[in-house]
Amino acid sequence: MNFEFHNPTRLIFGAGSLSKLGEVVAEHGKKALIVTGGGSVKRSGTFDRAVESLKDAGVLFAQCSGVEPNPRISTVVRGANIAREEGCDVIVALGGGSTMDAAKVMAAAVLYDGDPWNMIRHGQDQVYTPAKALPVITVPTLAATGSETNCGAVITNEETSVKSFVADKCFYPRVAIVDPELTLSVPKNQTAYGVCDLITHVTETYFNGIGGTPIQDRFAEGVILTAMEWGPKAIADGKNLEARTQVQWAALVALNGWLQVGTDYRMPVHMIEHTLSAHHDVAHGAGLSAINPSWMRFAAKSRPERFVQFAQRIFGIVPKAPDDMDCAMKGIDRFEDFLRSIDCPTSLSEIGIGDELLSRYADDTLLVAKDENGNLSGRPAMNRDDIIEMLRAAL
Amino acid sequence: MNFEFHNPTRLIFGAGSLSKLGEVVAEHGKKALIVTGGGSVKRSGTFDRAVESLKDAGVLFAQCSGVEPNPRISTVVRGANIAREEGCDVIVALGGGSTMDAAKVMAAAVLYDGDPWNMIRHGQDQVYTPAKALPVITVPTLAATGSETNCGAVITNEETSVKSFVADKCFYPRVAIVDPELTLSVPKNQTAYGVCDLITHVTETYFNGIGGTPIQDRFAEGVILTAMEWGPKAIADGKNLEARTQVQWAALVALNGWLQVGTDYRMPVHMIEHTLSAHHDVAHGAGLSAINPSWMRFAAKSRPERFVQFAQRIFGIVPKAPDDMDCAMKGIDRFEDFLRSIDCPTSLSEIGIGDELLSRYADDTLLVAKDENGNLSGRPAMNRDDIIEMLRAAL
Repeated sequence: MNFEFHNPTRLIFGAGSLSKLGEVVAEHGKKALIVTGGGSVKRSGTFDRAVESLKDAGVLFAQCSGVEPNPRISTVVRGANIAREEGCDVIVALGGGSTMDAAKVMAAAVLYDGDPWNMIRHGQDQVYTPAKALPVITVPTLAATGSETNCGAVITNEETSVKSFVADKCFYPRVAIVDPELTLSVPKNQTAYGVCDLITHVTETYFNGIGGTPIQDRFAEGVILTAMEWGPKAIADGKNLEARTQVQWAALVALNGWLQVGTDYRMPVHMIEHTLSAHHDVAHGAGLSAINPSWMRFAAKSRPERFVQFAQRIFGIVPKAPDDMDCAMKGIDRFEDFLRSIDCPTSLSEIGIGDELLSRYADDTLLVAKDENGNLSGRPAMNRDDIIEMLRAAL
Repeated sequence: MNFEFHNPTRLIFGAGSLSKLGEVVAEHGKKALIVTGGGSVKRSGTFDRAVESLKDAGVLFAQCSGVEPNPRISTVVRGANIAREEGCDVIVALGGGSTMDAAKVMAAAVLYDGDPWNMIRHGQDQVYTPAKALPVITVPTLAATGSETNCGAVITNEETSVKSFVADKCFYPRVAIVDPELTLSVPKNQTAYGVCDLITHVTETYFNGIGGTPIQDRFAEGVILTAMEWGPKAIADGKNLEARTQVQWAALVALNGWLQVGTDYRMPVHMIEHTLSAHHDVAHGAGLSAINPSWMRFAAKSRPERFVQFAQRIFGIVPKAPDDMDCAMKGIDRFEDFLRSIDCPTSLSEIGIGDELLSRYADDTLLVAKDENGNLSGRPAMNRDDIIEMLRAAL
């Protein structure tokens, strides 16, 4: 375990915390660009409450609405242009993961004269590493991506159908205002996809780390167990504030670095899903759910011990040996059962994806996420055939 | 769950990381005050390596050595005076919890003209709330207090035998350089006391939080289980770097805020132990170990469910009901067995404390840590008689 950790984001968590937005934004700027998604924050009244809080604090604002579910680089450019034209000096991201991700990259794009796509990683490469960005205040309205307190963002280039990511220190939000009340109106299926997304962040960490990190393992198991306990309650009754609170907290800690620290983890399932949702109109959480069990069965062959530990600690299945493959597979089956129980897809056919483009998905994934040997980075690393085999098993 | 969380300390963790000290300090100042304890860092060669790293980076330095195991306010004054006279603009704390705590308060005392004791809390009161401090770089040489990445400090007023604490944002170290190699030479008993100290930080959090924080519960259990697995290995073989690494990481996360966030916890066992070690020459970890099981038996009467959960999840004891007191008590017995197995005291008599001053300990504890009703803050709160009863049970 040799690592650095520094997450400088200040977190304000709890029901009602949206009311603090104005005073928080006023600490970082005079005029905010409010970035929003498809319109749900306006329908729910959240937008009006945010604006009221800004006005009360004397903060001016401009708007960039309409960030797509898989945010596009052209939207980043549009938002950065609005911020420049309007003289905004702080960005407020009010929405789900896509809105927050787009807002982070806008914040750097405002201060960069080149093509913002230069900031996005392509495999090992990044044409331009951003060093500065406008301050960003995140206000998530969905419990899913954990983007509110981390420095990552995923952006799609709609011209090439390439969806890739960027993660740099300057993207850490200055403040995250996390108010579970804002998620009370999230529909059942989006709630379930959010639970899937957050659990997949944890399973990626858990199964793709170096091992030898017992505390991180226990933390990861704790988040999975909590999400499996409280996720179904939030799905069953969207107005259950306690369930919404637990799920939102789980989503946040799933990807704020606390589980990942020291693990040197990889995210192969995310990389493959990004390719699927760049080609198809698929919710990110649904795409993850459709392929994660198949990836797990593939990976268990080379690291059975990790999957045995998962089966034992999450589902209480007692192994006959540390590498008891039967136990490992039973754990994955039980996990798949859980995904089905919250109406999440566990196959590609359920999300309308057939076998026509399997090679293309593999090629595109390798294009954005290949390691120094040309494979998809992960434990195990996956070559082109491995990806195709895994996807075929998920059909 | 309504809370704010912001731990801005940058962490550099891993064997060999001491070599980065010079470059890190150079980012924060030109002349460092190196604060050290009783001399072990000089005997072990750690001090020379630190100085070499500073010299290589062109950083000048002055020294304040001899911080006591229970650091005194007069030592804080002495260190602050050296820093002023020598024109130091950054503080390096190279040692255990006492050294780090003293260094934090020195860093604020340098910039404060009043009596530094004004910064220390007395019950609900604090005469002066420090708002600024010189940058502090912590380099722990012991896995125990977690002081390296939090904003707390415990200081003793030797004139009044009052030991109390301060916790303010300005005390967060700028950087913590945590190098498990530096702990390889810690003697067996100090290693065990460190394990006790870190586990007690977790049990305080776990048993004195508001409840309804399932992820924090799981995190806490994960740290306890890891400390109970790896602590004995580090005690048995001090040169086992993997064991030292796991224990040091456990000590850090036990009190960096990750387990505590949202729990609104109290630390009654620490408050009582501070009084004991202000009166007697007792190692902090040993004092905690001597009274923690008795405190647990006292507290279990009013919150059996928490102790049942502890018994079940830490020791696998299956309860007959959520408030099965027999199960709760068996869990505490097993915990006490663990403490004995690592040669830590589980009674006051083992650390040479008799029944002569029980009322005085209660009065002194209430002096520094009473809540708005005049009781010792905790779950449950303890009045004077409760404290005496608990201590008597620990004799």
